[in-house]
Amino acid sequence: KPSLWDSPTWVPPTDDGLMWMGENAYPFHEIATPAPRGHRVTSDGFGGKVLMAVLSEAVAKTGIDVHIDTGALRLVVDGDRVVGVVARHFQQTVTYRARRGVVLTTGGFADNAEMLAQHAPQLVGLGVNSDGGDDGRGIVIAQAVGAAVKHMSAGQVGISLVPGMMVRGMIVNDVGQRFINEDVYPGLVGQAALFKHNLRVWVILDEQAYEEVPVDERWGVQPHFVAETLAELEREIGMPEGALESTVGEYNRFAERGEDPYFHKSARWLRPLRPPFAAIDVRRGMAPPEYGDGGTSGGGAEVFTIGGLRTSVDGHVLDLDGELIPGLFAAGRATSGLHSWGYISGTSLGDGTYFGRRAGGAAARQ
Amino acid sequence: KPSLWDSPTWVPPTDDGLMWMGENAYPFHEIATPAPRGHRVTSDGFGGKVLMAVLSEAVAKTGIDVHIDTGALRLVVDGDRVVGVVARHFQQTVTYRARRGVVLTTGGFADNAEMLAQHAPQLVGLGVNSDGGDDGRGIVIAQAVGAAVKHMSAGQVGISLVPGMMVRGMIVNDVGQRFINEDVYPGLVGQAALFKHNLRVWVILDEQAYEEVPVDERWGVQPHFVAETLAELEREIGMPEGALESTVGEYNRFAERGEDPYFHKSARWLRPLRPPFAAIDVRRGMAPPEYGDGGTSGGGAEVFTIGGLRTSVDGHVLDLDGELIPGLFAAGRATSGLHSWGYISGTSLGDGTYFGRRAGGAAARQ
Repeated sequence: KPSLWDSPTWVPPTDDGLMWMGENAYPFHEIATPAPRGHRVTSDGFGGKVLMAVLSEAVAKTGIDVHIDTGALRLVVDGDRVVGVVARHFQQTVTYRARRGVVLTTGGFADNAEMLAQHAPQLVGLGVNSDGGDDGRGIVIAQAVGAAVKHMSAGQVGISLVPGMMVRGMIVNDVGQRFINEDVYPGLVGQAALFKHNLRVWVILDEQAYEEVPVDERWGVQPHFVAETLAELEREIGMPEGALESTVGEYNRFAERGEDPYFHKSARWLRPLRPPFAAIDVRRGMAPPEYGDGGTSGGGAEVFTIGGLRTSVDGHVLDLDGELIPGLFAAGRATSGLHSWGYISGTSLGDGTYFGRRAGGAAARQ
Repeated sequence: KPSLWDSPTWVPPTDDGLMWMGENAYPFHEIATPAPRGHRVTSDGFGGKVLMAVLSEAVAKTGIDVHIDTGALRLVVDGDRVVGVVARHFQQTVTYRARRGVVLTTGGFADNAEMLAQHAPQLVGLGVNSDGGDDGRGIVIAQAVGAAVKHMSAGQVGISLVPGMMVRGMIVNDVGQRFINEDVYPGLVGQAALFKHNLRVWVILDEQAYEEVPVDERWGVQPHFVAETLAELEREIGMPEGALESTVGEYNRFAERGEDPYFHKSARWLRPLRPPFAAIDVRRGMAPPEYGDGGTSGGGAEVFTIGGLRTSVDGHVLDLDGELIPGLFAAGRATSGLHSWGYISGTSLGDGTYFGRRAGGAAARQ
């Protein structure tokens, strides 16, 4: 649907098909002419279920055998070639002969705490965006037959804040310093907040900024601290005396002129902040409507892993010397795919669908 | 030699055997009672050559065969067991049968730009602390027989600054924000500067701070910008108007009281900075005396990799499921070793010697 939702948010509350995910923000708007884009299939709220319904229906029509509740344990190799899979179906060990190839689309490893500790320790202990099955097994069984991985420390960080509040105020670390332009894609804010500031971050805003965000976009978030002065707010949060006064003072001084020489937030979102002030502790989470009654994302962020198997653009898995492993393909979050650090929302759909189709096609042509 | 060099530096210009590497700084002095420690063998200046001379002499006395100019290409496996190495000696391929085991002590992968891009891309393009042979081949040939790696994105960052200048002033990012206590181990400053601020960092100090650093500890570093006012210094560097005025103002206000509530630098190093001011662009490098005439470390930092093979405390290399690989051992920077993120200088000697000895002993007992 070609209508534009023109305000920072994770997912529009409408069925608008286009939005900005920070493409119209610094530094990206200086590198290319920004265009709004689709983040999801046309849908009210989150679109994942619609997409899966369409894909499942297409699979059902083809008559393909689907074996559910069956997890791959290891690959079977004949010489240099991958020719099958040994899997577990409840108590039963099952073996599959792959005449053309095995395509691994097993997801990342965000649900595997040991793999996280080895490769992406900053993601340990946070909420996870997955169906619970991102155990990394597909990556490991491919490595066991010689596959290479890359970018294993990269992660997407869905930070628990309402972008519309942040963009109208500011986000600061635990000594009151801003660290990014608040109108950029909020996942990049999350990556900066986690990897650079250990998620000890607060959204600082004033009453007008809070009131401007429609109730249905607030996702249950209310200020955790409110104060008539910044000095009082600093004390409540436990920041150094003068930290917010200094940061907000500088911010306001330039906002009067519609400028942000520190982080280049767009003039559209620049306005001096006035008392009363409020602070939101990002680690206390929020309640996205898709989570249903009482569902909250606590801890400050929900994450998934970006690193994974090295592949060619046809989905061939590459070995440690960069050569194709005959008979082995992969797509989606089991691969390192398009992104690494700097992930932006929605592009895993591209890694899954576009490169998944290419991987399936390449396997079928074997 | 049990005498203490009691001032921040990379390597003392004396032969004092003890120094602080940030152990007496926040947050470490709050976690444990700090003690000074050795960073190197007793020596004037850098101690690496002394250590290598002692080790080489010990090897010569044993009558062990040493094959130089010979690089391992791959491991030879018999069943599950590593039983040898295929190597290249100039034009010649040579094969070694290992009766007890192969011990990989091949160093990290800082000299391999492709491996850096896959695993630790922020280290690409910087200077490298190595003998030029840290090509990662030992890690890759072990992976090819099933070895696991961890912490591959971690790196040590020998930032190109004089700790004695930084500690008497401050280090700031490109919008004039401090980001760490300047009396901590300078490698941690380097890691924060590279991984969080892309090495766009400046040392800000005043005339007194510069003059207090003895000439033989300045390593050729002179201020790149000097100014009577912070406003002028901001303009010269290209920082936002008011950025340094705000940061130095806050710093001075608390320094008067001997406090640093932002980053907890020790009162010993807190003093309000007064005009004239100076700024040093860290990316312009310095000239450590060990480099000889004209040798400079440019680009802002010299790095090496910390990630590598997973091993047991006996130096057994572990496979992807955490099981020992029979006949395969490793130590030193080919392994992930003691450290990961948060590396501190000198401890690679421990990874090399202590765990190298354990790995050799374990192989000999096979």
